[in-house]
Amino acid sequence: MKISTHKAHFSEPFYLESGRILSEFDLAYETYGELNEDHSNAVVVCHALTGSHHAAGRYENDSKAGWWDGLIGDGKAIDTTKFFVICVNILGSSFGSTSPLSIEPSTGKEYRLRFPVLVISDVVKAQMKLFDRLGIKQAHAVVGGSLGGMQALCFAIEFPNFAKNIIMMATTYATKPWAIAFNKIAIEGIVRDPGFKNGNYDKEEISKNGLMGMALGRMAGHISFLSPASMDAKFGRAYVETDGTYELLGRYQVDRYMEYNGYGFPKRFDPLSYLYIAKMMNNFDCTRHYDTLKNALSLIKANVFMLSFSGDILFPPTLMKEMYEAFCDIGKKGNAEYECIDSDYGHDAFLVEIDKIEMQVKKALEWKKI
Amino acid sequence: MKISTHKAHFSEPFYLESGRILSEFDLAYETYGELNEDHSNAVVVCHALTGSHHAAGRYENDSKAGWWDGLIGDGKAIDTTKFFVICVNILGSSFGSTSPLSIEPSTGKEYRLRFPVLVISDVVKAQMKLFDRLGIKQAHAVVGGSLGGMQALCFAIEFPNFAKNIIMMATTYATKPWAIAFNKIAIEGIVRDPGFKNGNYDKEEISKNGLMGMALGRMAGHISFLSPASMDAKFGRAYVETDGTYELLGRYQVDRYMEYNGYGFPKRFDPLSYLYIAKMMNNFDCTRHYDTLKNALSLIKANVFMLSFSGDILFPPTLMKEMYEAFCDIGKKGNAEYECIDSDYGHDAFLVEIDKIEMQVKKALEWKKI
Repeated sequence: MKISTHKAHFSEPFYLESGRILSEFDLAYETYGELNEDHSNAVVVCHALTGSHHAAGRYENDSKAGWWDGLIGDGKAIDTTKFFVICVNILGSSFGSTSPLSIEPSTGKEYRLRFPVLVISDVVKAQMKLFDRLGIKQAHAVVGGSLGGMQALCFAIEFPNFAKNIIMMATTYATKPWAIAFNKIAIEGIVRDPGFKNGNYDKEEISKNGLMGMALGRMAGHISFLSPASMDAKFGRAYVETDGTYELLGRYQVDRYMEYNGYGFPKRFDPLSYLYIAKMMNNFDCTRHYDTLKNALSLIKANVFMLSFSGDILFPPTLMKEMYEAFCDIGKKGNAEYECIDSDYGHDAFLVEIDKIEMQVKKALEWKKI
Repeated sequence: MKISTHKAHFSEPFYLESGRILSEFDLAYETYGELNEDHSNAVVVCHALTGSHHAAGRYENDSKAGWWDGLIGDGKAIDTTKFFVICVNILGSSFGSTSPLSIEPSTGKEYRLRFPVLVISDVVKAQMKLFDRLGIKQAHAVVGGSLGGMQALCFAIEFPNFAKNIIMMATTYATKPWAIAFNKIAIEGIVRDPGFKNGNYDKEEISKNGLMGMALGRMAGHISFLSPASMDAKFGRAYVETDGTYELLGRYQVDRYMEYNGYGFPKRFDPLSYLYIAKMMNNFDCTRHYDTLKNALSLIKANVFMLSFSGDILFPPTLMKEMYEAFCDIGKKGNAEYECIDSDYGHDAFLVEIDKIEMQVKKALEWKKI
């Protein structure tokens, strides 16, 4: 499977839901496989909060593959010998697309906190500009987990003719206070950290140690990605050696896990991007223009495949079950499928439990109901 | 109901499980009601991580009553016209008992990080010294929630002749990695905060603003005290006015709740106390000297009443259910009772849902099975 990495520049003004305008913007994206002659084999993959367009394959000399490499590739569930797979780095994320660290054309300086607020509808609309340019009028499917699932749902509601199928995993139709509370720790951790300097932090400095507050926020995130059962299975009450500081505290395996994941993250992820994308997640509510969930879902023409995971405490299975029931109530039972996969991995399951989801994804991609 | 607040000084060396010795120590405690002639009407109430000995009643000119005032008082579930209620500030907590901020006799200086590590067995054993001094050989009951419930269990296992009944709420027989992970955020928040100064922070300064890292840790705590359902019911997706900083972030009701609870706490709770008590909670495992849970529980002579709450995500109901099943397996079904109370308040329920627990507590206090 060949990885093609690109950057597309858009020089037309882009109107955002907030009323602000991006006078130009870039989108970084990757593709795998070949677009067929009638341009009907595109599968759009949407990344989660801290993901990137590098969804699959391995760059030269890189030890780590893309974040959904288990699912995407030649002969895999999202088969790149059949499908043209495309994954776009969302607006606001700093892996190549326009973000708070990009140069604001009118000032010649980085946006920083002057960057406009983005919502999921904006990042989806921006992707549509790219697909239009690539001659993709319709996608065979849009697939995503967590924030990626929110994007998939947004495609289905706001561009009903675009996707034939959407596959949503470990996600919700609206972000609930529980998830907002977890995000709050990271948000406060970032903006109250003296090193944040009102958004004017030194990038070099940040990448050396990262913001302490952001590390604490990420630790909270890692709690929300797991579950009591997954932590029991993974760590139990096992001890490890302390690292010498504060011996009195002792150190459990779960402590080490939290340290590793908490402190590593802020060195490689930009705090302003995190703020803007967390805000985007907090504000997601697909019903906001449509009064009720049923009204919103009634706009959908795609087949909707919903996968939740039993131990997901960030977006509990009840959320997509509620969606499925709403589909049934509005007479769309034939175009909706809901499954809850038993998993000890919590929210992380959509990234980790490839063997449990690949059959479902295959099935959903071959869906012929419509 | 009269509140009597006391401080007891113990000048004998006190041997700790860690192998360290406290050459002397103080215990602050409160009592309500009167000890009867044969000293048989004592009810010991054990406080949780951030609680104090002020469990009930209202001090003069104080707007807030003790933390379990709804449950303790004349004619209330723990009826102070019948019972002599006693609540002891645990060792390590800085509300009057010996803590890291106390003077170390050998140096004449505050202990700070030289304070010895404490475990629940230590704080229970210290309380036994006090009860002995007060002439209480046996308590009618020991009652507590969360860390207080761990103490109750520890009383029952390690001093089997002391309590006739124990009532444990929202707690566990061993702290699982899930709870340790939540504590981790507070612990890292405290020790990595530059203001902590390796434990040598200025007390005045701390009480003005509090440590930012401790505030973030407390926010994580407040997530663990609630649940997805309780947050939905309490906050939904309702907005509030922003406070002017970082307008772009918007502000949900749940954000305001997190700010209020997060930032207020570090001003009134000592970070070293928090560290030592969080460590105490992390290390709690009633089975550690007894190989298995059943072995540990088989030492108990008291009636054991276990109350869990359906939405408790910090110590999920499964934990006490497991205990109940172990009691049944070792032929102690007649001395054990387990109930799971339906509540939207999560872990907080044992402090908040007084109307749902008071009948249970009354019933448990009147238990005549033994």
